[in-house]
Amino acid sequence: MLNEPHHDPSVNYVSTTSPRPGETVVVEVAAPAEIDQMLLRTMIDGEAQWIEGARQGERWTFALPCHNAVVNYRFWFKTGEVARWLTGIGCIDHDPLDHHDFRLLTTGGAPEWVTGTVWYQIFPDRFASSGKHNQDLPDWAWHADWADDVAEWPESMTQIFGGDLDGIIERLDYLADLGITGVYLTPIFPARSNHRYDAQTFDRVDPLLGGDEALIRLKAACDDRGMRLMTDLTLNHTGDAHEWFVAAQADANSDEAGFYYFADHPSRYETWLGVDSLPKLNHSSAELARRFYDGPDSIVAKYLRLPFDLAGWRIDVANMTGRLGQIDHNEKVRRSTRATMAEVDEDRWLVAEHFFDASRDAGGDGWHGVMNYTGIARPIVSWLGNFSTLAAMSAGPGQDVRDGEAVAKALDEVRASMPWQITIGSMALLSSHDTARWRTMARSDELAKIGFGLLCTLPGTPCFFFGDEVGLEAPDAEKSRRTMPWDEARWDMTFLEWYRTMIRTRTDSSALAVGGMRWVERAADALTFLRESRDQRLLVRACRAATDDLVLDLNQLRSTTITRLVGTGTAVVDGSSVTFSSDGPSFAVFQLAD
Amino acid sequence: MLNEPHHDPSVNYVSTTSPRPGETVVVEVAAPAEIDQMLLRTMIDGEAQWIEGARQGERWTFALPCHNAVVNYRFWFKTGEVARWLTGIGCIDHDPLDHHDFRLLTTGGAPEWVTGTVWYQIFPDRFASSGKHNQDLPDWAWHADWADDVAEWPESMTQIFGGDLDGIIERLDYLADLGITGVYLTPIFPARSNHRYDAQTFDRVDPLLGGDEALIRLKAACDDRGMRLMTDLTLNHTGDAHEWFVAAQADANSDEAGFYYFADHPSRYETWLGVDSLPKLNHSSAELARRFYDGPDSIVAKYLRLPFDLAGWRIDVANMTGRLGQIDHNEKVRRSTRATMAEVDEDRWLVAEHFFDASRDAGGDGWHGVMNYTGIARPIVSWLGNFSTLAAMSAGPGQDVRDGEAVAKALDEVRASMPWQITIGSMALLSSHDTARWRTMARSDELAKIGFGLLCTLPGTPCFFFGDEVGLEAPDAEKSRRTMPWDEARWDMTFLEWYRTMIRTRTDSSALAVGGMRWVERAADALTFLRESRDQRLLVRACRAATDDLVLDLNQLRSTTITRLVGTGTAVVDGSSVTFSSDGPSFAVFQLAD
Repeated sequence: MLNEPHHDPSVNYVSTTSPRPGETVVVEVAAPAEIDQMLLRTMIDGEAQWIEGARQGERWTFALPCHNAVVNYRFWFKTGEVARWLTGIGCIDHDPLDHHDFRLLTTGGAPEWVTGTVWYQIFPDRFASSGKHNQDLPDWAWHADWADDVAEWPESMTQIFGGDLDGIIERLDYLADLGITGVYLTPIFPARSNHRYDAQTFDRVDPLLGGDEALIRLKAACDDRGMRLMTDLTLNHTGDAHEWFVAAQADANSDEAGFYYFADHPSRYETWLGVDSLPKLNHSSAELARRFYDGPDSIVAKYLRLPFDLAGWRIDVANMTGRLGQIDHNEKVRRSTRATMAEVDEDRWLVAEHFFDASRDAGGDGWHGVMNYTGIARPIVSWLGNFSTLAAMSAGPGQDVRDGEAVAKALDEVRASMPWQITIGSMALLSSHDTARWRTMARSDELAKIGFGLLCTLPGTPCFFFGDEVGLEAPDAEKSRRTMPWDEARWDMTFLEWYRTMIRTRTDSSALAVGGMRWVERAADALTFLRESRDQRLLVRACRAATDDLVLDLNQLRSTTITRLVGTGTAVVDGSSVTFSSDGPSFAVFQLAD
Repeated sequence: MLNEPHHDPSVNYVSTTSPRPGETVVVEVAAPAEIDQMLLRTMIDGEAQWIEGARQGERWTFALPCHNAVVNYRFWFKTGEVARWLTGIGCIDHDPLDHHDFRLLTTGGAPEWVTGTVWYQIFPDRFASSGKHNQDLPDWAWHADWADDVAEWPESMTQIFGGDLDGIIERLDYLADLGITGVYLTPIFPARSNHRYDAQTFDRVDPLLGGDEALIRLKAACDDRGMRLMTDLTLNHTGDAHEWFVAAQADANSDEAGFYYFADHPSRYETWLGVDSLPKLNHSSAELARRFYDGPDSIVAKYLRLPFDLAGWRIDVANMTGRLGQIDHNEKVRRSTRATMAEVDEDRWLVAEHFFDASRDAGGDGWHGVMNYTGIARPIVSWLGNFSTLAAMSAGPGQDVRDGEAVAKALDEVRASMPWQITIGSMALLSSHDTARWRTMARSDELAKIGFGLLCTLPGTPCFFFGDEVGLEAPDAEKSRRTMPWDEARWDMTFLEWYRTMIRTRTDSSALAVGGMRWVERAADALTFLRESRDQRLLVRACRAATDDLVLDLNQLRSTTITRLVGTGTAVVDGSSVTFSSDGPSFAVFQLAD
């Protein structure tokens, strides 16, 4: 694969990844000497433009004008009489459409800090309890002991273990020691379930979690440790106990009645997937927009400002938000939300839950990124996992087991479908509160560790669910929401050490944060790729089983020394070649140097 | 390829191609017996839904709910332990995104009559002159004799040969005899060039062409012969002599000043590709919308109503319309235009000029279809043509010569990128007033005829430029706009006969109008496919050179008799197999019957 031309819109190949409108970006292609001619093809105001390049050593260079919000481009090249295209999915032999074009955004990408962050996802009721709050449970809730199992559905939804925000504060040093730099909390607003996706209000933090004051304390404690703090907002629906819905049902002429879709007021209304307790919001309402996500008086703005000062929002079921039959307000909602956040501060992150193809939604001026189930979780599960059903990931008949070639194609197609800034501004994840635990999905503990290695080395800002790092297991989403065991005797220390190692490797690396992504090997049982920034060059090799040696020419790697940073595979240099070997499942990150 | 499962959203596989919102459509897949399991995966309000199928003989059947404006779906199937997907580009081995999903529209497709029409494109100044009009030329114009050559650019733009609408009326019987059922006129409004894409007004037909009365006469003459009549509108820009632009320049505070983008009034303004005489329209103006394309008082509505009663509009440079830097009003313009047309009559056609990837624009409730340069012209030119530059098709370094496999991929990807209704509601073309003549692009006359055969048998409503049928040649767009020679001694009768034959074949066939499209053979020099409706089954084989015999099992074709309808390839049935042979370039359409 190293004998094919390569480009990606990373710092390794473009002069800036976040051009201003009107800026000209220098775009480079790494290309073998045999190529005779290369042109860049972009679109300006809907019309194709062809741009001549210049060859400089092993690189072709082009001056790309960035005129529109999304700047898409690809390369046409000729070797002898054979003309091909270089696109986001590699080199192809036929005339392509635009959906695999490389893309830059003049609307800006995620804040720079995002790409350097490693996220720890906390389900607040289950991570840690200070014991200070929730002595008096509301009527819908029932109390469980920390050591209890998660109950069976539907009792599981009202089971309260008593985790709270002050409990998190008490454990922040543990997270700091693990290397965590971002804490993502699932919802913290009052609701009638432990998951809180059925909000009763967005005006205050749930007293069960310690209320507004606890959130302010947690923010300060995160600040002290250089950690970002983010939480979760559902723009698609509220709970049926939400103050807006209560007002809406009470008065068909109220403003709030216009916030929902009533087929027959007050009893029949649109919901999330037919669940009566989750009435769907009607985003044609300007008053709803004003209160919720549009402008300085909105909920979206409120929690980004002092005293809360949160680092961003994760948007629940973003893929469904504003969509109902012939109606589609999704674009309006995501653009308004983004604009509202930018008014507060350009440096806040907006990341959308999306289990499916997000390319239509993640265009540039809405979500900074998505929870990348499609581009990271599914491909890796299909290589290393063994699940027959992952219902919460809507994988239908289950995630199929695929060989490395097919996995690489899936990884590439998702990356190619979205602007590079969206990819590196997206959350890379293997599992969450909505899936089985990753260790349980993986076909072995060794493969689970390899999966976490890939999570930390593929493009995107890694996020994992609390407790994965100590080897927790669970076969479905509900059971995944078990409590964190604070008795270290119950931890798998081999997981904890590997997670700590990989988190540090990720955090220390510019190449893993923002570097380009280039395949070296795509075999059934081995995937090898380069991650390269301007100041660091890494080679990552993951083998899910014993596999053939990979022999590379050091000149092709532009390297004289190859040093393993972490992991278990080997690289042996002999003269002008290097041999990568693995006699079983392995994962290693190598540093390349001239 | 016949041993793979197949689906397309044509009448052959769906119970209706134009479902109403909320309707459930029966969707079928032709599938080999080895397949053990098949599921349909669709999206509802942004969330995936999986639907179980039932096998009935060689077909799997699914009930697909059509809930959203665009209904996308694909199929997951398992053969033994191997799971794959069936998508718009065929069967694939990795998890796909949505852009190759099959699609149905609940917003309706092109009017039914469109799919049965064969279009004849007329450049009014060059087709035929009645001699009744344009004795007095305007100041910008100069007169040429009918037998003259097209002048060199820029004199070519003001050269007037004197063709007019009454001239077309005099030749309508010629078109009827050729089998033409639709006449498409490039612009007919007053302008300062012979191409008239620089309109001075949209309020009346150019007196040089005979004025409004001539258009009414032409419409009546077309009606008498059962022909549709359509013309051309530029929504992207006007001429700088347009009454709106004159008013805009005269008064910076006028309504009209808001119709354009003035950087420095009155002298600096945005234009089409930097051409000062073509000021670009600013579609943020509601008054512009009202006058031009939005509502019953608009230009768009006026010419669809009596006494003009035109069959539709072809929209010039639709790909650029409303797009400028960070601004993109394209969706608003196309949706408003479509809605305005539908208010007059649901039965009018809205087709957009688009040289590039139209999938982003042709989503459903805007353009009914596009001029399918990308999905038809380019792939066929790349198989049969030899042009090194086709600047007007923005092919950049030229259209590359491709083998059949790559050509089939390009054809498939474009078809897969758009809803089936958009594909069959799109204009299939090889060339136009904006390109070289097709005969000149083709590598030989034989290949030119094969190309026209493909044009009439691939999905889409065929359109060709006046005079192509008598074998006219021209190396570029300007020279293509030569006059029609009415001296039959100058006609290539072999072209005329072939065009007449293929037009009749197309017009007589339900399979070619609306039938499914399934590959049988994709080889370097041979492309073979089935077009099947519920009442007709055709096999089309095009060979650009002598090629290997194609031997098929009659059972796989579900046929006992194979009859050649037109063309030169042969099909010999021997027992249970049929052998298709070609000892050189050939094209044939065979009818299959049980």
